[in-house]
Amino acid sequence: MHRGRSNGTRDYNPKQMAIREKVFNTIISCFKRHGAETIDTPVFELKETLTGKYGEDSKLIYDLKDQGGELLSLRYDLTVPFARYLAMNKITNIKRYHIAKVYRRDNPAMTRGRYREFYQCDFDIAGQYDAMIPDAECLKIVHEILSELQLGEFCIKVNDRRILDGMFAVCGVPDEKFRTICSTVDKLDKMSWEDVKKEMVNEKGLSEEAADQIGEYVSMRGGMDLAERLLQDQKMCQNKQACAGLSDIKLLFSYLQLFQVTDKVVFDLSLARGLDYYTGVIYEAVLTQAGLPPLANDSQNGASSEESAGVGSVAGGGRYDGLVGMFDPKGRKVPCVGVSIGIERIFSIMEQKASAEKVRTTEVQVMVASAQKNLLEERLRLVTELWSAGIKAEVMYKKNPKLLSQLQHCEEGGVPLVAILGEQELKDGVVKLRVVSTREEVDISRADLIAEIKRRTSEA
Amino acid sequence: MHRGRSNGTRDYNPKQMAIREKVFNTIISCFKRHGAETIDTPVFELKETLTGKYGEDSKLIYDLKDQGGELLSLRYDLTVPFARYLAMNKITNIKRYHIAKVYRRDNPAMTRGRYREFYQCDFDIAGQYDAMIPDAECLKIVHEILSELQLGEFCIKVNDRRILDGMFAVCGVPDEKFRTICSTVDKLDKMSWEDVKKEMVNEKGLSEEAADQIGEYVSMRGGMDLAERLLQDQKMCQNKQACAGLSDIKLLFSYLQLFQVTDKVVFDLSLARGLDYYTGVIYEAVLTQAGLPPLANDSQNGASSEESAGVGSVAGGGRYDGLVGMFDPKGRKVPCVGVSIGIERIFSIMEQKASAEKVRTTEVQVMVASAQKNLLEERLRLVTELWSAGIKAEVMYKKNPKLLSQLQHCEEGGVPLVAILGEQELKDGVVKLRVVSTREEVDISRADLIAEIKRRTSEA
Repeated sequence: MHRGRSNGTRDYNPKQMAIREKVFNTIISCFKRHGAETIDTPVFELKETLTGKYGEDSKLIYDLKDQGGELLSLRYDLTVPFARYLAMNKITNIKRYHIAKVYRRDNPAMTRGRYREFYQCDFDIAGQYDAMIPDAECLKIVHEILSELQLGEFCIKVNDRRILDGMFAVCGVPDEKFRTICSTVDKLDKMSWEDVKKEMVNEKGLSEEAADQIGEYVSMRGGMDLAERLLQDQKMCQNKQACAGLSDIKLLFSYLQLFQVTDKVVFDLSLARGLDYYTGVIYEAVLTQAGLPPLANDSQNGASSEESAGVGSVAGGGRYDGLVGMFDPKGRKVPCVGVSIGIERIFSIMEQKASAEKVRTTEVQVMVASAQKNLLEERLRLVTELWSAGIKAEVMYKKNPKLLSQLQHCEEGGVPLVAILGEQELKDGVVKLRVVSTREEVDISRADLIAEIKRRTSEA
Repeated sequence: MHRGRSNGTRDYNPKQMAIREKVFNTIISCFKRHGAETIDTPVFELKETLTGKYGEDSKLIYDLKDQGGELLSLRYDLTVPFARYLAMNKITNIKRYHIAKVYRRDNPAMTRGRYREFYQCDFDIAGQYDAMIPDAECLKIVHEILSELQLGEFCIKVNDRRILDGMFAVCGVPDEKFRTICSTVDKLDKMSWEDVKKEMVNEKGLSEEAADQIGEYVSMRGGMDLAERLLQDQKMCQNKQACAGLSDIKLLFSYLQLFQVTDKVVFDLSLARGLDYYTGVIYEAVLTQAGLPPLANDSQNGASSEESAGVGSVAGGGRYDGLVGMFDPKGRKVPCVGVSIGIERIFSIMEQKASAEKVRTTEVQVMVASAQKNLLEERLRLVTELWSAGIKAEVMYKKNPKLLSQLQHCEEGGVPLVAILGEQELKDGVVKLRVVSTREEVDISRADLIAEIKRRTSEA
């Protein structure tokens, strides 16, 4: 009998779960602070719901076996189910987060943190609103989350699909080559400009002149000033699309100033996230500090493995105003903007950080122990009292456990206190409370015990 | 294009998610109070891991399509993955909970709350311990959870696989008929004794005499006294298995007394949960109050649809000392006892209770609004301040929203406070703080605003 686990999947052990819970709490608190609701959708969708949404990556979709009935596939991301949900329920306004696992039949590279089952953590704002206000809030949220998680220095790159398209147009890229040239530009975070240019010219048949013009633009980065400069740019200003994008970038930066996050945001013309469904602003957050763990969980921060993601990419997203309409019988559009937090990447970083540390996997405040034999009943009585008072407490499931093994259990599990019962203590109506870290012991009357435990573990 | 959702699945909307979160919090707090860790396993397992664990119900397992590579199936419960996890990692001691979705190709009966994707919520204690101490804690946990969730009156039935087997033996049931007669006994919560007897005699070929003897036993219920009485029973006391079970029931009740839960626990010889893997104590919690919602989510409280579950069943479990050994190359056993909380049933009850109520789906404390035009910047500045202070705050994504629509948004969403900015307030360095429920308005200085919001929403 095979006793293993499926390739490219993993179990989370209690330590990993404790880290995962901490990360979730930070992120969910942020989403809630911004007034988000949450929804959940099934792990499988009708196959046709996913068809035609992921381009070449569709081959990575897990299908269920046809056992009679509908053809089903495991969800590939959370964005398509979200769009299906909005259309199906005719919802035109929602600010929601969704944290759940998605599935890709990718080549697992588990040492690099790439799995076939992994979490996505999405925040999206759907609704017809005034330009760039929800977009700015998405960036604000990324800024808050990355700051609070203390992952080190980061930078949020911003661009706009319309600026990219406009740029390609004014540089003389033929319309039908926009997508393919865009995906080459997307490699600029991993390849030198020379190599990117070679690919454009040699593989994709772009003229050298056009490539050079693109090269000039994609080297540009800045802030609102760059948007203003490009609005004056002789070529760019002739392209309507580009102008609309540049004006929005300007407006976006004005809101980002009010949100006090411009320190980390860069308008970067080389940012070209691969997803077809983006229609406006796009962004990506990158950790910039040296000494990052050697992960390349590239495909798992957004909705597509085609999607670019820098070495240190930990969040990405953008505006997608057309997707919901694809699910509506009348094609009614619901404008959306959202961000996907690269939570698997973040787990890995936090796990590496914690690898040397002891991480508590329970929250037990006190173990009820005894030094002598035949005190099981007394232990069970006391632990019942503590549970009633809301105290997290444990007792060993042995009639006569050794005191040493009870203390060891506390040391291993990080349990801070031990309430020790003995014949003498029972006679005196007290409990010996032992502080595991200092080995200090103090007799506490039964009447004061609960308050004393709460006091001593209140920071936990 | 199809725009639907797969049969037998559902989306959770924000209101359902808010209820789900509340239920989870209560249950998880209880598990943590008892010192449990948590783990997670993948949604799919190797097909062979699930093979031969669920008897006839194996036909309900979802298989993934063979797209090259391994043969995979969606998990059918959390117990088999748990056993696989323990064996694979050679863990001999753990107290863990696991809340996750499982999958069954059952006939969906969604109006009755039966889905093909549904949550299980399991708590298990693995390890070689002294008899009945962990078993008693499982019952204590069920008692705490059902009490805290305020689901109404309930009763926890207890029995033991060995008592059932012993009873069948002394009543003259042939060995090979134990399982099938057991599954007939299991129907006693839905069928009269007469019908059960008919099935035994006419369909299963049991002698009428044997059936009548079983009938006498399965009508018995009581507490520790009943266990004592049966230990004196002329027939029962001759069966070694039955005696061991009865002694353990006695011991169990002595611990339940210390845990102060005997008020709800009944030793009931008709309880016969269907799962093959139980080896000792079994139990099931049933809501006993009239007026329960008409659900029959029977198959979803435990690991099998064969498993009995009364109309109001909301938790069930038992001891299974042999399962982990099935996954160990050397067959090393890890004794386990656990309980599965029928959380889908509980969601449904809570949803029905809440159907008339307004349930908040966000935790927003204050909306930053303006009464006049051109105050977007001021609103964004203020909301940024509030977010920095950890306050859950919202702003409408419009340049010039109407005050009325801002107030309406708060009333609909249950947002308790509105911080209103106007030209005059800005000049005076104040904010008009409006209490949505009472329409009371009071000017608060900017310096005091954060403290005032915290004070007024501290109970939330």
